[in-house]
Amino acid sequence: MYIGIDLGGTNIAVGLVNEKCEIIHKGSVPTLKERNYQEIVKDMADLAKKVTEEAGYTLADVKAVGIGCPGTVDSVNGEVVYSNNIKMDHVPLVAEFKKHIDLPVGIENDANAAAYGEYIATGKKLDSFVLITLGTGVGSGAIINGKIYRGFNGSGAEMGHASIVMDGKVCTCGKRGCFEQYASVTALINQTKEKMEDRPESLMHEWIKKKGKVNGRTAFECAKAGDKAAKEVKEQYIRYVAEGVSNIINIFQPELFVIGGGISKEGDELLIPIKEFVYENDFNKYMPKTEITIAKLFNDAGIIGAALAAVNN
Amino acid sequence: MYIGIDLGGTNIAVGLVNEKCEIIHKGSVPTLKERNYQEIVKDMADLAKKVTEEAGYTLADVKAVGIGCPGTVDSVNGEVVYSNNIKMDHVPLVAEFKKHIDLPVGIENDANAAAYGEYIATGKKLDSFVLITLGTGVGSGAIINGKIYRGFNGSGAEMGHASIVMDGKVCTCGKRGCFEQYASVTALINQTKEKMEDRPESLMHEWIKKKGKVNGRTAFECAKAGDKAAKEVKEQYIRYVAEGVSNIINIFQPELFVIGGGISKEGDELLIPIKEFVYENDFNKYMPKTEITIAKLFNDAGIIGAALAAVNN
Repeated sequence: MYIGIDLGGTNIAVGLVNEKCEIIHKGSVPTLKERNYQEIVKDMADLAKKVTEEAGYTLADVKAVGIGCPGTVDSVNGEVVYSNNIKMDHVPLVAEFKKHIDLPVGIENDANAAAYGEYIATGKKLDSFVLITLGTGVGSGAIINGKIYRGFNGSGAEMGHASIVMDGKVCTCGKRGCFEQYASVTALINQTKEKMEDRPESLMHEWIKKKGKVNGRTAFECAKAGDKAAKEVKEQYIRYVAEGVSNIINIFQPELFVIGGGISKEGDELLIPIKEFVYENDFNKYMPKTEITIAKLFNDAGIIGAALAAVNN
Repeated sequence: MYIGIDLGGTNIAVGLVNEKCEIIHKGSVPTLKERNYQEIVKDMADLAKKVTEEAGYTLADVKAVGIGCPGTVDSVNGEVVYSNNIKMDHVPLVAEFKKHIDLPVGIENDANAAAYGEYIATGKKLDSFVLITLGTGVGSGAIINGKIYRGFNGSGAEMGHASIVMDGKVCTCGKRGCFEQYASVTALINQTKEKMEDRPESLMHEWIKKKGKVNGRTAFECAKAGDKAAKEVKEQYIRYVAEGVSNIINIFQPELFVIGGGISKEGDELLIPIKEFVYENDFNKYMPKTEITIAKLFNDAGIIGAALAAVNN
């Protein structure tokens, strides 16, 4: 039995994960991220104990704890080097956690943990695997020969911060034109708002009156209802996603490429045009092609991946 | 002792490589690439024998032969799946070569072989390493944990075919906006020619009268002589290279990033502004930075890398 903890900006999610890599019980509490880290870590540990007990187990049944964390993580030294989302600067997260629960504890960047979770969920031993998550930002992780690829300094595989539009939109990372600035849900929301300003006749204005505010589903749902402006937003957004996916596949030629994050719930609406563009623009024209799919675990990937990464990596 | 063969579109280069990974003797013959592959392979083998004998050795001293080949290479089955440069389509290169020299023979994509050669030349065991070569195209290779990264299908690490300008220039691979279309020597020559058309007063016109035709040095040399138009070409070209390097570093965070190919002989003229841009735009702001250098081996990287890849990979 393992404990996986997904430390997010909004919630702390904890799951008890069995040997089959399934979550058998889970729970969450608000992160309240403005607090000092000691309080946050205490809540993480308390929730871990609670989830374990509620499932009918004790900490003696748990072999290891894995924590997935946003930002720059030093897995070797158990430290959050820097996180912008939850304000942390050289926080010894593992040592702090062990004050509460003295088990083997591992820490991993959250996108890497999610990638590892989705990789494990395939149930296969793949040569190479890439996950991107289309969420507030564009997260990514690569699993090569069954191991999380982190680069030499642990900051690796930030595919959302490779540019697709040189000198394009300014990114939160400081660079311009990053994939994230065009393919995240945040970007889609901006693209939707911009189109709505230009197109007062669009059905999207009616949609907002009913649903309250623009979100990642606005364009997709209104496009399905036949709105032309919404269809333009959707198609342009998918084209941006496909551009980045195509670049990543030309670089990694992974055996499997998985798309996760909120938008990925659109399923084939998103997947089919991406595949079409990617295969048409694949540098590899003569060897077997990368399989491209939608994520299986969604939000659970972070918990499962953190738990398993702590054990295996 | 190993034999490394760099099969290029113009020349076949063969080197005898010792245990210290040094070329102790080398030679080359024209590829005459329009011939059938059996004749080309016979010339490769004949040259391998000649180079070995001229160095005072026999084939009995040679442990293995490695061949670096352009195009899509199936290293496992010893086959050139497809090469556009030297017309080859499912050519059993290893089996054909063994008809002439019956030693262990390996085959590798030429850019991967060059990356491996430059990696070995560092004399270090690096966590991760990337080479790009700025030549006719933009070649690239990644060495991860001491192994060539090929992707699951052997077509991997084509970093020159990730786009930096979405919907930009059409690439030979069919995609638009590829890094190669902006950062290769071919691209630099086109950028130089375009600028010259706009700027009849440029010193570059005088330079051409002396040197015959535009090449990769035109803009760099005329910029050094104070020509404003040439300086603009040089700066814009370097900016393109830096964009791609920055993307690759955000993705791989390699311990060492090496720039090779003809243009890399410009040394610090190229390297210093690239480093400045890359470090300024690095997603990694808190951990040690990727070292960026100019290649050591240049053309010999292909021979040494092919020889060593045959043995080690």
